[in-house]
Amino acid sequence: MARANAFYAQSGGVTSVINASACGVIETAHQHKSVIGKVYAGRNGILGALNEELIDTSKESKRAIAGLRQTPSGAFGSCRYKLKSLEENAREYQRLIDVFRAHGIRYFFYNGGGDSQDTANKVSQLGARLGYPLTCIGIPKTVDNDLPVTDCCPGFGSVAKYVAVSTREAAMDVASMCETSTKVFVLEVMGRHAGWIAASGALAQDRPGDPPHIILLPEVPFQQRKFLKKVKTTVEEKGYCVIVVSEGAQYKDGTFLADAGGKDAFGHTQLGGVGPMVAELVKSRLGYKYHWAVADYLQRAARHVASKTDVDQAYALGKAAVEFAVAGKNAVMPTIVRTSDKPYRWKIGEAKLSRVANVERKMPKNYISADGFGITAAARRYLAPLIEGEDYPVYKNGLPQYVTLKNELVGKKLPEKW
Amino acid sequence: MARANAFYAQSGGVTSVINASACGVIETAHQHKSVIGKVYAGRNGILGALNEELIDTSKESKRAIAGLRQTPSGAFGSCRYKLKSLEENAREYQRLIDVFRAHGIRYFFYNGGGDSQDTANKVSQLGARLGYPLTCIGIPKTVDNDLPVTDCCPGFGSVAKYVAVSTREAAMDVASMCETSTKVFVLEVMGRHAGWIAASGALAQDRPGDPPHIILLPEVPFQQRKFLKKVKTTVEEKGYCVIVVSEGAQYKDGTFLADAGGKDAFGHTQLGGVGPMVAELVKSRLGYKYHWAVADYLQRAARHVASKTDVDQAYALGKAAVEFAVAGKNAVMPTIVRTSDKPYRWKIGEAKLSRVANVERKMPKNYISADGFGITAAARRYLAPLIEGEDYPVYKNGLPQYVTLKNELVGKKLPEKW
Repeated sequence: MARANAFYAQSGGVTSVINASACGVIETAHQHKSVIGKVYAGRNGILGALNEELIDTSKESKRAIAGLRQTPSGAFGSCRYKLKSLEENAREYQRLIDVFRAHGIRYFFYNGGGDSQDTANKVSQLGARLGYPLTCIGIPKTVDNDLPVTDCCPGFGSVAKYVAVSTREAAMDVASMCETSTKVFVLEVMGRHAGWIAASGALAQDRPGDPPHIILLPEVPFQQRKFLKKVKTTVEEKGYCVIVVSEGAQYKDGTFLADAGGKDAFGHTQLGGVGPMVAELVKSRLGYKYHWAVADYLQRAARHVASKTDVDQAYALGKAAVEFAVAGKNAVMPTIVRTSDKPYRWKIGEAKLSRVANVERKMPKNYISADGFGITAAARRYLAPLIEGEDYPVYKNGLPQYVTLKNELVGKKLPEKW
Repeated sequence: MARANAFYAQSGGVTSVINASACGVIETAHQHKSVIGKVYAGRNGILGALNEELIDTSKESKRAIAGLRQTPSGAFGSCRYKLKSLEENAREYQRLIDVFRAHGIRYFFYNGGGDSQDTANKVSQLGARLGYPLTCIGIPKTVDNDLPVTDCCPGFGSVAKYVAVSTREAAMDVASMCETSTKVFVLEVMGRHAGWIAASGALAQDRPGDPPHIILLPEVPFQQRKFLKKVKTTVEEKGYCVIVVSEGAQYKDGTFLADAGGKDAFGHTQLGGVGPMVAELVKSRLGYKYHWAVADYLQRAARHVASKTDVDQAYALGKAAVEFAVAGKNAVMPTIVRTSDKPYRWKIGEAKLSRVANVERKMPKNYISADGFGITAAARRYLAPLIEGEDYPVYKNGLPQYVTLKNELVGKKLPEKW
């Protein structure tokens, strides 16, 4: 294939390591100058392509690009924007091809979750159909860890580490004061559809019986009586109870706990958190003093406590995406293939985008403990390696030095606005 | 003074560095064996003395004691328990003296905030009155940073660092998606009476105009219209708005925002968080999509991102307390004396417990910006050095290795229970 430019975009919720993938893409493309010319990044993800807002990454210093490896968030901006099917909105796809053609772009790297892999797959089909062959490579990313085929998704390992570390620390705090103060602590974490993040709280345990004592997963329908009984037993036995609850915790009928008609079980209006809701439930039924925390964006932005494994994989997948493209592959996504649990060994694999698109991987049943409040040894074997290793950012004046790019846009070439 | 045993207790809310002070006390006492025999720690703070539950720290390995320096929470347990005045409850003080006498304790180290310094002061007076001379030394501790005389309080610097780092990270996350997603992010932090913790969020700023754009301090009465206007202007100018709110944020009449009769401005029942309340206010009045986080115990337990300055000071104050005792001082507390802002230089000073007890230091007026939503250069000069330096705990399998002590109790000697 003749030399051409590349387009890279970040999609959906950002993570603490998605920029490490960007770094892998840009640095690796630079090593293949005979094949890949400029790397243009979409301003705010795929919208950057539609709006012809292309960031010229060659205007950034080598040092700034290297700094992406330790910078959380989406350095070029991201968006939640899903392209419709080819039939429903051919105009959007046509526009993408128009922009790509105008700027000599023949490589499309899309860094995101299941929806994004679906988009990349469609763009690849369309290119072929419109006689503008495009090489489309997906790069996995999602803190939800819900993509199929790959061992794990970049972004998840660091959130898992944040949740495990925070749970351990907060639990020690509660334990040291429970005799006269807080008895129940609830930490709300992300994961609307799959319990991977909440499950990782269990990594805080060194021994059985260690906190967190209860994990509420979306995969296990919430049973109030059983839950309250477990809280009570735990407080009576241990003196305190630490609970990690997934934002996606739900009743049997699929209603979210935090979303039950705007009211909780006691007619209180919800302000949006399942964490406070669960804490209130405990207080009103069992009378225990409680505290709760909602980590929200803090967890997925926490580059300061990122997993080195996660950072390394994020970079390696960005690098592999470019190498796939250079090798002439198309409509594929590099994956992580686990070859050993302990020590953890992994290599880069390959999945067709059509196999990845729109498939959601939930926690397998054999990862959930019999009582539904914890995880099994199999889950621990799977999760433990993903939080291994520390990869601290450089600090200055007590704060991590994260990179802000210049993000200079390329001049527009198309007459019409989007 | 003849050789005697020492009693050490942790008091009130624990921090990520109070064990570093314990480490300083125990290791330094060990260097003065001719003066100080055993160091007994109170199980659950001062309750350990009243209940005659004394932990023999000499049963712990040298390594475990050294490990306290990097372990958050209260390793011996803490409590919220304030002794009454001598007149109101002489029995409690008498009991303390009885326990101390029975166990040959003539040194009393009390590690806590204003209330605890008050207690230490009273115990010292009482000892003299009852003919049982006790050396009473306070050791400052409080994430609220509200003790007078000392430059700062151990525990605060690390919370400040956690809040500054988390604010920076979450703000980058919001910034990268604000065009199509969340516009307003609210982080709720501790500090019921003083805004020191919320103010430290401002350290996330490199330049004026950087996030956090709004800080809501307890010292500045909340004005809804002015606040909403600032949010709107910020979103219009920057594309997003990051708000750090103190749990103690209040109206002019002293009512907490989060506590306004159990209902917020719209009749919603509060589930306890000012963070979600402020976020809801923004949503209902301005319509912006929001996210909120409540850090709660996570912030004061976050040893993984502790300030090295804070850890060093916590240890140094524990060490100084023992050295004061050995030097024959009484009813005093070692303090931090700042000798230079930049580079930050400090030394150990000394304050009479009577000067420290029950005095609350709020943010000075000249630390608060004219519009009330930020801090001044003077505040920045004061705060910045306190988060300097990293002091990472040792990790194993991706998790910090915190110490759990054996906490063996000494046999009881008194016939009566408390």
